[in-house]
Amino acid sequence: MKILDGKAYSEELINNYKKLTSGKSITLGIITSEEDDSKIYLNGKIKACKQTNIKVKIFKVKSENELPPLIKKLNNDNITGILIDNSLPNFLDIINLLSKEKDVEGLTQENIYDLYMGREKIVPCTAKGIIKLLKKYKIEIRGKNVVIIGRGITTGKPLMHALENRDATVTLCHSKTKNLKEIFKQADILISMVGKPNMINKNMVKKGFIGIDAGINKVDGKIVGDFNFKDVSSSASYITKVPGGVGPMTTAMLIENLIELYNAGGK
Amino acid sequence: MKILDGKAYSEELINNYKKLTSGKSITLGIITSEEDDSKIYLNGKIKACKQTNIKVKIFKVKSENELPPLIKKLNNDNITGILIDNSLPNFLDIINLLSKEKDVEGLTQENIYDLYMGREKIVPCTAKGIIKLLKKYKIEIRGKNVVIIGRGITTGKPLMHALENRDATVTLCHSKTKNLKEIFKQADILISMVGKPNMINKNMVKKGFIGIDAGINKVDGKIVGDFNFKDVSSSASYITKVPGGVGPMTTAMLIENLIELYNAGGK
Repeated sequence: MKILDGKAYSEELINNYKKLTSGKSITLGIITSEEDDSKIYLNGKIKACKQTNIKVKIFKVKSENELPPLIKKLNNDNITGILIDNSLPNFLDIINLLSKEKDVEGLTQENIYDLYMGREKIVPCTAKGIIKLLKKYKIEIRGKNVVIIGRGITTGKPLMHALENRDATVTLCHSKTKNLKEIFKQADILISMVGKPNMINKNMVKKGFIGIDAGINKVDGKIVGDFNFKDVSSSASYITKVPGGVGPMTTAMLIENLIELYNAGGK
Repeated sequence: MKILDGKAYSEELINNYKKLTSGKSITLGIITSEEDDSKIYLNGKIKACKQTNIKVKIFKVKSENELPPLIKKLNNDNITGILIDNSLPNFLDIINLLSKEKDVEGLTQENIYDLYMGREKIVPCTAKGIIKLLKKYKIEIRGKNVVIIGRGITTGKPLMHALENRDATVTLCHSKTKNLKEIFKQADILISMVGKPNMINKNMVKKGFIGIDAGINKVDGKIVGDFNFKDVSSSASYITKVPGGVGPMTTAMLIENLIELYNAGGK
């Protein structure tokens, strides 16, 4: 069993990005609410920006009504990419107020459509990070049976398309899926993005499977994933840890997407 | 084994649509090339329009250059919906010149995105027809393992989303899929939209499976599907025939989409 070390790889990537961002004036705008909770969610991203000399501008809103005029203004401002805190109300409607040129998370209609069409531009960070991590460890995606658990608009569905674009055979599971165990047992690569601690056990996986745990759950003050790691890891050929797996890769991809936006002519 | 009789059901639907279209001035514009072949592809659709008193206007183009100005003009014309012959070069780029309000096949960026988001508006005709046919025979979609073979932008992918929106667990197979047989055996509902005659045999399916054959192939002058019908039908609980299954349902859904466009305020 080998660990897919997202933490180490993301540090390596961040170091590389430093060279790419050097001398460039790249800015990330973050739109968030006044509450403190969202800060935790954003801390890692802000830190990665600092490490790569990317300026961060935080815009705090008190009410939903402030969002349309703010986003409209920022679309025309001297900002490379804009991250909208996904805990804001009606996030999925708000996101489409963003111009494609500032869509650092690849979640606007244009970017999702390009992903669907197999002509990827800016790919959502978690999906991109998982694929990059698999590639780092030379894990072939083409022709593999991949099972994704969780059909989030910003996570599971983009990943499904990104993997299909790379010729995986993808099954998308969710809360209404029956015979989970039977389906999981077919998976060469099993990716969980549900948010249920210890949901996946040894008797549900194939011997030699590759496990990607994108779940983030707080249990007794500790962050754990969706896999029962101790239990399933002995059956895995490769597996990620939580924390230190997908999370840091997602953060690194935010920086990569920012650089891509900048290079595509962004400000 | 019961036949999912798309032909009979589509006739029933067309009869119902007659009442809905009566007294309304609905027009379908068809953009096609000068070649004769495309006529065959369109014949059934033109016939269904006649049956429902929908006017048909055919616009023949000689070269690709004629398309942008023609579509731009028709977007503002007194036409309810516009069908662009999918055999035209660069069809997938051209389709997005259509305004959403005229997009009778549900293939523009806006409609595909709404499908992805689970807030369907105009759904692509083949996907919609297959779901309607399953519903007619009271076949539950929720929680079913559905395997789709074929990942076409206009067929397999829209169907994947439409079924996922109805809580199926969907696996999308394609030319790079390995262990086809193993995957097909898991399918409660197996849907083929590949275009390979007699591709699917009895030893590849689960006893009691539901078979939807959306393949259209010409063999010795006869139209056949992707299923080896004689061989697999005895293992099926329900199955479509080719011809007389998905094809007529697709045609009926074109009429249904036209009526929806009209009712949504189209011309």
